[in-house]
Amino acid sequence: MAEPGIVTACVVVIGNEILSGRTQDKNVNYLAKGLESLGIRLREVRIVPDDRKKIVDTVNECRAAFDYVITTGGIGPTHDDITSECVAEAFGVGMYRDPETVELIRSYLRSGEMNEARMRMATFPEGAELIANPVSAAPGYRKENVFVLAGVPQIMRAMFDGMKHHLSGGSRMRARAVHVHLPEGAIAEALGEVQERHPDIDIGSYPAMRQRRFGVSVVLRGTDEAPLDRALAEVRESLVALGGEPTDESPDSPPDPED
Amino acid sequence: MAEPGIVTACVVVIGNEILSGRTQDKNVNYLAKGLESLGIRLREVRIVPDDRKKIVDTVNECRAAFDYVITTGGIGPTHDDITSECVAEAFGVGMYRDPETVELIRSYLRSGEMNEARMRMATFPEGAELIANPVSAAPGYRKENVFVLAGVPQIMRAMFDGMKHHLSGGSRMRARAVHVHLPEGAIAEALGEVQERHPDIDIGSYPAMRQRRFGVSVVLRGTDEAPLDRALAEVRESLVALGGEPTDESPDSPPDPED
Repeated sequence: MAEPGIVTACVVVIGNEILSGRTQDKNVNYLAKGLESLGIRLREVRIVPDDRKKIVDTVNECRAAFDYVITTGGIGPTHDDITSECVAEAFGVGMYRDPETVELIRSYLRSGEMNEARMRMATFPEGAELIANPVSAAPGYRKENVFVLAGVPQIMRAMFDGMKHHLSGGSRMRARAVHVHLPEGAIAEALGEVQERHPDIDIGSYPAMRQRRFGVSVVLRGTDEAPLDRALAEVRESLVALGGEPTDESPDSPPDPED
Repeated sequence: MAEPGIVTACVVVIGNEILSGRTQDKNVNYLAKGLESLGIRLREVRIVPDDRKKIVDTVNECRAAFDYVITTGGIGPTHDDITSECVAEAFGVGMYRDPETVELIRSYLRSGEMNEARMRMATFPEGAELIANPVSAAPGYRKENVFVLAGVPQIMRAMFDGMKHHLSGGSRMRARAVHVHLPEGAIAEALGEVQERHPDIDIGSYPAMRQRRFGVSVVLRGTDEAPLDRALAEVRESLVALGGEPTDESPDSPPDPED
């Protein structure tokens, strides 16, 4: 999977609550944006249940295929929090209890509240480098190219923001976007022609409503500003030729509220 | 992966816009709830880019491993809509143009608006059985155990709701939930003991805020009501013994707004 200048990542979301529909995942979107801003390409996401073999196999497959793997979920104190055992097994290493983390967790508790379940949150795969948890003490960690973060969004975000400067990014992705009140089917051929002339630019087309009218957002992504602006000019020309009035918009434009 | 009485599914989300962070996926959660209500276990989700080889490999891997595969995204008219070619390639079949769909799409357009790009939405892998799109005409389809749906949420939902009665469910999952204002680390050991006594029940523990106080939601899932109620009674007893006051709540209880 090695591509020159390209740094890739995979996010592995661990948790039955996402797969049962109880919980709407919000971590993928946060990590996607964060990785994008670092020049790292999020190439795949896997959402897997709290199942030992599945987690071990997924971690091993993904850490071989991508530069970075980020897992979320399964590092709390309860019986269904099995991520750390699974990461240790995936790497074929044992686990160790970190005395400083034991003391850190103890400092968040009242006297006598430390117990075996909480000790599990101070137990890591051998070779893990800890990632601070400024919200609730129990840390995440890095094991080689695998970053193990909490599942609770506010904790996950704090961990990621605290550790992301350790990730080596590649070429930053730049983006441009225009919106036009034309149907996707009317502009598809012209867009495809621009895409063919600019194979290094990724042109995406997304039906979207603006000012209560249906239209299309066209998003262009690439690493170099000049070719990106040339492709954007060609997209604009094509849309005008089709009778449209393209308007610039943010490439991060949110989806329609009614979606 | 065959398990007696258990019907499994995998959702494959296709689209660069999810992986770049531009779009927050909402289809997985809708499908997760819909499958759960049919007695089908959503066992994995893959989110992959608009990349031919990746889509083909993912479809082939997942259709062999799960009873059902549902894909979302990539069936529109533009150059980045490549799902149907990929599904055809995954199955090793050619593609055909469906004359009725051509007429259907034409009926949504003004005279002269039909074009080659729109014809792509009437072109399917051989053997596809079409799934109606009551929103914007261009259908999804089923090819053996793979269901190919649109990515736009309102269209995806209409397609799924229209076709889901064709899915054969297994044993329905029943769920119970209680919330308690105790920290997860305090109840972990007791919960683990209940889980050990009830291996057929899946007990999950989720930190959650209620009435502005932190606590834990404990969710129990299983196919049979009586063992589920016995396990729930044991969970309640354990929580009371720990000084908690467990209150029933919906197993679908939404997450905290501040998440």
